[in-house]
Amino acid sequence: MKPLLLLLTAFLLVGAAAPAAKPRSSAEILEQSTAADWRTPDLEDTLYLDLPAGRVVIELAPAFAPRHAANIRALAREHYYDGLAILRVQDNYVVQWGDPAEDAKQRKPITSAKPTLPAEFERRWSQELPFTRLADGDVYAARVGHIQGFPVAGDPKRGQIWLAHCYAMVGAGRDLAPDSGGGSELYVVSGHAPRHLDRNVTLVGRVLQGMELLTVLPRGTGALGFYENPGQRIPLKTLQVAADVPVADRTMLQVLRTDTPTWKTYVDARRHRREDWFVQPTGRIELCNVPIPVRPVRAAKP
Amino acid sequence: MKPLLLLLTAFLLVGAAAPAAKPRSSAEILEQSTAADWRTPDLEDTLYLDLPAGRVVIELAPAFAPRHAANIRALAREHYYDGLAILRVQDNYVVQWGDPAEDAKQRKPITSAKPTLPAEFERRWSQELPFTRLADGDVYAARVGHIQGFPVAGDPKRGQIWLAHCYAMVGAGRDLAPDSGGGSELYVVSGHAPRHLDRNVTLVGRVLQGMELLTVLPRGTGALGFYENPGQRIPLKTLQVAADVPVADRTMLQVLRTDTPTWKTYVDARRHRREDWFVQPTGRIELCNVPIPVRPVRAAKP
Repeated sequence: MKPLLLLLTAFLLVGAAAPAAKPRSSAEILEQSTAADWRTPDLEDTLYLDLPAGRVVIELAPAFAPRHAANIRALAREHYYDGLAILRVQDNYVVQWGDPAEDAKQRKPITSAKPTLPAEFERRWSQELPFTRLADGDVYAARVGHIQGFPVAGDPKRGQIWLAHCYAMVGAGRDLAPDSGGGSELYVVSGHAPRHLDRNVTLVGRVLQGMELLTVLPRGTGALGFYENPGQRIPLKTLQVAADVPVADRTMLQVLRTDTPTWKTYVDARRHRREDWFVQPTGRIELCNVPIPVRPVRAAKP
Repeated sequence: MKPLLLLLTAFLLVGAAAPAAKPRSSAEILEQSTAADWRTPDLEDTLYLDLPAGRVVIELAPAFAPRHAANIRALAREHYYDGLAILRVQDNYVVQWGDPAEDAKQRKPITSAKPTLPAEFERRWSQELPFTRLADGDVYAARVGHIQGFPVAGDPKRGQIWLAHCYAMVGAGRDLAPDSGGGSELYVVSGHAPRHLDRNVTLVGRVLQGMELLTVLPRGTGALGFYENPGQRIPLKTLQVAADVPVADRTMLQVLRTDTPTWKTYVDARRHRREDWFVQPTGRIELCNVPIPVRPVRAAKP
């Protein structure tokens, strides 16, 4: 065999068998990620909901709901939520908490914060927002993707963008009037993404840790999953801003950045699922099927 | 005013205010449905999974997984499932049951049924299947819709159609080999639709009632949500074919037919959500966001 042909043959053989050619799984991508691939949410944007069973950690999204984020911080700081209760657990839909008192006169007063706010259903699509598009399409919106760790949907024609109702997203419950919410009553999406709620109610953030403390709660048997018996309600011990909590009591988490090459590689691995178990990788991924990885902050080396 | 003009004016006024002009909500459509809009699942296709906390009712889909349906009936009839346990509860994913024994020699023997079966991931798209298309699009498949009360996805080019992994769908767990399932280990989708599993694992049916008995179970803390401590497992009292259960002990349910004008009207109401609370109806609906209504069979009049 001529040297050139021999070289070519060797190249083809090695090329076909090279382990480096195998795309990495999402687990491998996360294992091999660097510190720069992760961000630590601002303590002012982090909430700790402490239930009898443990802590739920929520990250606020002030880029999308600045007035609601500020009002929720104010409500937390006047200890408004402490002693309220989980009132509603509707299977495959939402878990919701607020003031159990049905009579307005018996409700816990709101002092420094605002009882209601104008809706923040969507915002202008600014180039300053680090949008990473998910090009797989969507039933509900012309564009979908991620911004700062949140699933988003947008309409380029109108130049508007909004948070999407995926699993674990947190919103501000409202009555019939669009401006009747404000954060005093909050809900968490606990089932298949109810995307029809997008732009109908203000989303304020996302649960980073502790979803399983909410999703195991007994389902309410009343209309819309409300508990019929007051004894079924789960009391909120506290809902605090992380910045107000002593350092030793904080739950320090990091979220995978959604504006990096690592993120794109990670999403692609979730899209193709090249793990051996899969026999028909779809090559597509739907917005709310992209898990947004969260990890504990690693302890500093002594 | 001339009589004709008067008549026209009256018509316009009445027309504008006529309650009949307002599209009905999905609740109204169901209230006004007729007996012919509902079907009663065959007793041979209905399974009762009796847990300590109550009954889960499953409808098998023999049109899509005939060999699995037959094998699951055979397993139920040899009391294979009775005394096995829920082994895995992974948040926002699946609840799974089977034989807890890890050592093959200690496993409960399968006598009349088959331990494994060839995969039934998809089937030929026959005109005999009463397919009602959902024309809103889909991220994962070229066509989606409903057949006989099940969410389905299809590929008209290949002429193939398959059950879709929506919330409450039931599948036959498998190992690495595609033909390593068969129904001895079953899982239920308990979170956001993991559509990437479509055509990778055999779906066999859907939970009609009792999802909340599965979704409240404590999440497993092991890999993939498996329970780490055997004491955490939830025993299965029995899993029986409804036809084998005494009449007095049956849970008789009806499912809204998915091949009628009522179904199309119902889906359209869910698509547009014209209830007063909604300020921005989407006009779109995603396959797994269409709830498939189930109701108890009404008691015969004495």
